[in-house]
Amino acid sequence: MIIMFDLFICMLLQIRGINKANGLLPSVFQDVHVMIFIGFGFLMTFLKRYGFSSVGINLLLAAFGLQWGLLLQNVWHVDHGKIKVSIESMINADFSTATVLISFGAVLGKTSPVQLLIMTLLEITVFCINEHIVVGLLNVSDVGASMTIHAFGAYFGLAVARMLYRPGLKNGHDNEGSVYHSDLFAMIGTVYLWMFWPSFNSAIAEPGLPQLTAVINTYFSLASCALAAYATSSLVEHRGKLDMVHIQNATLAGGVAVGTCANMSIGPFGAMLIGLVAGIISTLGFKFLSPILAASLGIQDTCGVHNLHGMPGILGGLAGIVAVALGKLENSETTATLQAAGLASTLGFALVGGSITGLIMKIPIWSQPPDQNCYDDSVFWEVPEEEEEKEESLTHGDHSKNKTDA
Amino acid sequence: MIIMFDLFICMLLQIRGINKANGLLPSVFQDVHVMIFIGFGFLMTFLKRYGFSSVGINLLLAAFGLQWGLLLQNVWHVDHGKIKVSIESMINADFSTATVLISFGAVLGKTSPVQLLIMTLLEITVFCINEHIVVGLLNVSDVGASMTIHAFGAYFGLAVARMLYRPGLKNGHDNEGSVYHSDLFAMIGTVYLWMFWPSFNSAIAEPGLPQLTAVINTYFSLASCALAAYATSSLVEHRGKLDMVHIQNATLAGGVAVGTCANMSIGPFGAMLIGLVAGIISTLGFKFLSPILAASLGIQDTCGVHNLHGMPGILGGLAGIVAVALGKLENSETTATLQAAGLASTLGFALVGGSITGLIMKIPIWSQPPDQNCYDDSVFWEVPEEEEEKEESLTHGDHSKNKTDA
Amino acid sequence: MIIMFDLFICMLLQIRGINKANGLLPSVFQDVHVMIFIGFGFLMTFLKRYGFSSVGINLLLAAFGLQWGLLLQNVWHVDHGKIKVSIESMINADFSTATVLISFGAVLGKTSPVQLLIMTLLEITVFCINEHIVVGLLNVSDVGASMTIHAFGAYFGLAVARMLYRPGLKNGHDNEGSVYHSDLFAMIGTVYLWMFWPSFNSAIAEPGLPQLTAVINTYFSLASCALAAYATSSLVEHRGKLDMVHIQNATLAGGVAVGTCANMSIGPFGAMLIGLVAGIISTLGFKFLSPILAASLGIQDTCGVHNLHGMPGILGGLAGIVAVALGKLENSETTATLQAAGLASTLGFALVGGSITGLIMKIPIWSQPPDQNCYDDSVFWEVPEEEEEKEESLTHGDHSKNKTDA
Repeated sequence: MIIMFDLFICMLLQIRGINKANGLLPSVFQDVHVMIFIGFGFLMTFLKRYGFSSVGINLLLAAFGLQWGLLLQNVWHVDHGKIKVSIESMINADFSTATVLISFGAVLGKTSPVQLLIMTLLEITVFCINEHIVVGLLNVSDVGASMTIHAFGAYFGLAVARMLYRPGLKNGHDNEGSVYHSDLFAMIGTVYLWMFWPSFNSAIAEPGLPQLTAVINTYFSLASCALAAYATSSLVEHRGKLDMVHIQNATLAGGVAVGTCANMSIGPFGAMLIGLVAGIISTLGFKFLSPILAASLGIQDTCGVHNLHGMPGILGGLAGIVAVALGKLENSETTATLQAAGLASTLGFALVGGSITGLIMKIPIWSQPPDQNCYDDSVFWEVPEEEEEKEESLTHGDHSKNKTDA
Repeated sequence: MIIMFDLFICMLLQIRGINKANGLLPSVFQDVHVMIFIGFGFLMTFLKRYGFSSVGINLLLAAFGLQWGLLLQNVWHVDHGKIKVSIESMINADFSTATVLISFGAVLGKTSPVQLLIMTLLEITVFCINEHIVVGLLNVSDVGASMTIHAFGAYFGLAVARMLYRPGLKNGHDNEGSVYHSDLFAMIGTVYLWMFWPSFNSAIAEPGLPQLTAVINTYFSLASCALAAYATSSLVEHRGKLDMVHIQNATLAGGVAVGTCANMSIGPFGAMLIGLVAGIISTLGFKFLSPILAASLGIQDTCGVHNLHGMPGILGGLAGIVAVALGKLENSETTATLQAAGLASTLGFALVGGSITGLIMKIPIWSQPPDQNCYDDSVFWEVPEEEEEKEESLTHGDHSKNKTDA
Repeated sequence: MIIMFDLFICMLLQIRGINKANGLLPSVFQDVHVMIFIGFGFLMTFLKRYGFSSVGINLLLAAFGLQWGLLLQNVWHVDHGKIKVSIESMINADFSTATVLISFGAVLGKTSPVQLLIMTLLEITVFCINEHIVVGLLNVSDVGASMTIHAFGAYFGLAVARMLYRPGLKNGHDNEGSVYHSDLFAMIGTVYLWMFWPSFNSAIAEPGLPQLTAVINTYFSLASCALAAYATSSLVEHRGKLDMVHIQNATLAGGVAVGTCANMSIGPFGAMLIGLVAGIISTLGFKFLSPILAASLGIQDTCGVHNLHGMPGILGGLAGIVAVALGKLENSETTATLQAAGLASTLGFALVGGSITGLIMKIPIWSQPPDQNCYDDSVFWEVPEEEEEKEESLTHGDHSKNKTDA
């Protein structure tokens, strides 16, 4: 049951602002928008019975999150009681929403829409505080947001998932798998994220050479990461087969990992090296680390966000420290120490914030679905009766009739 | 059976024109193009057995309509027997096509391709006349075309649907429903329309502040509308569940309703209020009004275009009257009275034009499908035999064999 | 089994380059990128059991090909041991990848990933040599690359397919068909290719009037081609029905065929005429020519690339010869003779290069799938067990149990 909660929030959010004209709608904004709504939404449709929720609740959280993010990110720029809205603030709103959608991946299938709206509210708040400290006060450089979005969103989500640990799902769940066409829907998400990631990493870069550098570095990192993911997947899988889970996710790790360094002069070689390492550790993470996390630490990470956003995000932060130490970033006040402080701050806020949020979400008044109804759209959606099932039962009935006739 | 009709039309349409260079291909044109072909096309794939027609006939009608629209819209700008083609005229051609695709939604599943080509021909003609009167002569402001495209397309389509009323479908039809994956395909359409609507409403706005205002107002209206649609859907549905039909459609009503006011200085608050109301009335329309229209007035509106385009379009027209009366639009000759006249003209042309078009489409020579073949691709398409069905029958045969053996 | 091969190549490719800033990421690059990854990838998902490979191996080949293409195309512009990377070279890298993806269509379902990586390596090499001769040395005009990409890719792929001829598939294969939803996935590819083809044909045109001309000519050619494809499909099919294969492919032939002339002043009439002819011959090719090619010449062309890229590509080349002879291209050194030489060179390189590549691919160490495993994802992918099949077998088991009980 979703309550009047969102309506209330919706009214709360109304911003009395003037529109500040500082440029036209750039295609880079549209690319990021596509990543948020199509990319994240469809990437999570891989579960056989959870497609409605993946893409539908993704839309709900994103529509809610971008309003909340727009409000919070500009709350200290209030001018005569009004907030100025520009394309840049819309891009930043999309960014703050991305953290929530990453965390959504960690708890996918095990939470109610109301729980997720609460998570959106709290996570964006913590994100804005951390980002203000890291980027605003410490002057840390994180243009593609490996740390402040990807690592933050992943570890926040994992902390929430830990708090919501369900012993009843220890041995898996019937619906926690894909069917053939649900994997194809997920590939829509993967390919869109892959294609538009250069726009994501360059969206807030300084126009001119830095922005172009961000585009090209991300492009090379993704290309190299995709090859690494295919190669690693076929190496670790039974008889050299590829695993769709790896292809859907690990091919994107290069975009995450190159984020912090994207606008630095690391050269195509540096970018490809980062992508290569990201693709390998991400695939290995899916294969070997995720089962351990679930079994030993009680972290049931549905989409494997630790492998796609968590580890590659930290890798990106570390690469940024090295790159800054090597003097690859000009015209900036950041240092390797500040970069390291930024990474530490991000992880701290994510883990503490996520744990507290998880505790709040655990209060048993938010209609969290019981174990047997996890990964199942029909708890929150009117789901059409499946044709096949109908035919199935018809056939069944038919046989039974025949049998009794006989 | 599709006849040589389209080939003939195709030859008729050839425009001897010079290409006028007045700017590069802007991304806003591509966004509108995506909405027309992917957005409208996939939005209508929700029916379990009508996906080929939804996306395929959408492509046919759009490819035909944009040529016809390009010709008609420029027929009074002929210069030495030549029509000048520019990106702006291509955007306007896409717009005129949108009216047809909206009306297509009202009669989806109950008409033949030939009937629909005739509708395209007539509807775009009426649209161009009405638009010339409303925008060209009355100077009405309707930048996002809430009235001239959305309300027009919806009421034109509803008038056609009334004329083609089928008493045989009064109690529904086996195929008039969705299956799980067809609903996911439809969500592709929904999300694309949702994401690119700001481009639609700002495509023909004056560059600079008015265009940016149109983008931002639409963005806020859609965000608020999406939340309202989710909240309303869960309030009216059984046990607080969400209904895919509402999510697929009502989340978009905010884009329709804010169209007329998009370039006016209504502020984010005004835009969100319009979106909120649109999301609520659209969802309520699907739940309560559509069954009444079908039962009492004989209007079988397959996609519920009355709820997505009709009522929100009128709401947009009314909001425009109020906004103009409040002086929210500068540098314009329109008045509240002229805005009201524009809305009245649009509804009049739509209802009369649609009724006449419906009568012409009813002539029984256009191979309209019989009642039992409605909502079924196999009337007009070679449909692959379904694997499941094959397996089904194999299983069946197997059992039979076993049985006879026994 | 995919071996360490790609990792090795990946390291080989690392380009030590500086990033040359000559402009921002234009939306035209993103459009081409979408065509390569979404368009080609999903267009090939029509096979019932080969969707993972279609979209997945498309991503692998494209990610690999664009690195290799970027390296090769710039190998003669090396400056102090460094290659300059710009958006234009990224567009050209996407273009060189397109040839491979076209050839992939001809051998879809009958080759292993390793074979395809070898094909990528060799085909892009031959492509770069031919393109350097045709465009660089002969000054042939081929802005939309009807010849150098489409005809080249198609005949290269057909030569490979001839070399890999499988007599065992002469009477078809159980999996060589579509299911309902796989055809809908393929339509995603079709519609994206259709929408963004104007960007493809204008991507490397001179900015200003020539680029706008390329956009508008392609737009008209596609619109006219789509109508021709629908009309022809319904004329040649049983009882006037439409065939999805025709709609998915032949609607795009106009984009291929207008490529060479796209930036010439052929006028909308000329563009539409080219599109009309392309749509007709492409549809007729699918209906009548493909079966003959398979039966008589031993060319098993899975996706019918001969109909979509081969014949329309040659048509484009011929149209270019005529248009240049008629003086439709200004400021160019090309002549009708040079254009013809360019077409001949392209076909020669494609057929010879493709045959040699095919022979290399035939060496039985590349884990080519046996006949009975063609068109089947499960050879190279971990495929989820289908829910329906599981239910099926449950039902089956249930019946058997009942029966034995009885």
